Amino acid sequence: MEKINISQKLKQFSDYWNPRIVGELNGQEVKLVKFKGEFVWHHHENEDEMFLVIDGEFKMEFRDKVVPLKAGDFIIVPKGVEHKPVAENEVSVMLFEPASTLNTGNAKSALTQEHLKKI
Amino acid sequence: MEKINISQKLKQFSDYWNPRIVGELNGQEVKLVKFKGEFVWHHHENEDEMFLVIDGEFKMEFRDKVVPLKAGDFIIVPKGVEHKPVAENEVSVMLFEPASTLNTGNAKSALTQEHLKKI
Repeated sequence: MEKINISQKLKQFSDYWNPRIVGELNGQEVKLVKFKGEFVWHHHENEDEMFLVIDGEFKMEFRDKVVPLKAGDFIIVPKGVEHKPVAENEVSVMLFEPASTLNTGNAKSALTQEHLKKI
Repeated sequence: MEKINISQKLKQFSDYWNPRIVGELNGQEVKLVKFKGEFVWHHHENEDEMFLVIDGEFKMEFRDKVVPLKAGDFIIVPKGVEHKPVAENEVSVMLFEPASTLNTGNAKSALTQEHLKKI
């Protein structure tokens, strides 16, 4: 039961699209991730996913709209909904989702991270 | 699927110890709450609870230690662990916890909020 400082955790990695696990509770995980560039279209069959912007900004693309998000904003993407994060510049994001969630959901690719590190 | 801005939500209420629900996913709820003063000692029988400080600072008291938390820090309190938040000045906190979680856990009192508002 220690406090965790988000900025300190973010300093521990610099690669993109590779979430780190920073907390676990009730079968859910809290992750930190840095985005830059364009991810892949995907959805999660069984998991809703929350994206909370810590620093910077990005756009969450959906098939029918684009939602711009900046620090202090969050969005919840329900299971089954296709989405694609796009970040013009580096952005730091906190994720809150079930421990079973795979970053690329149904769209396995070179971007898929099967084994996330805990930091 | 709209973005939610934390600051805008926090402007919508000013009372203490009365969490508002601002998001729901995977059977969990995202809440915002303002603390000021001293809460009650309590634990949650079945729910782990995450406290993420948005603005300000407070101390989480445990029976064997005190953890000071400021903006950008979070702590996860496992089920069964007695705790008591204490805030010298107003602090805004985001909570992540199962939808079943009662703010005062096992310690029902005048501070108990049975029906949280969604904002």
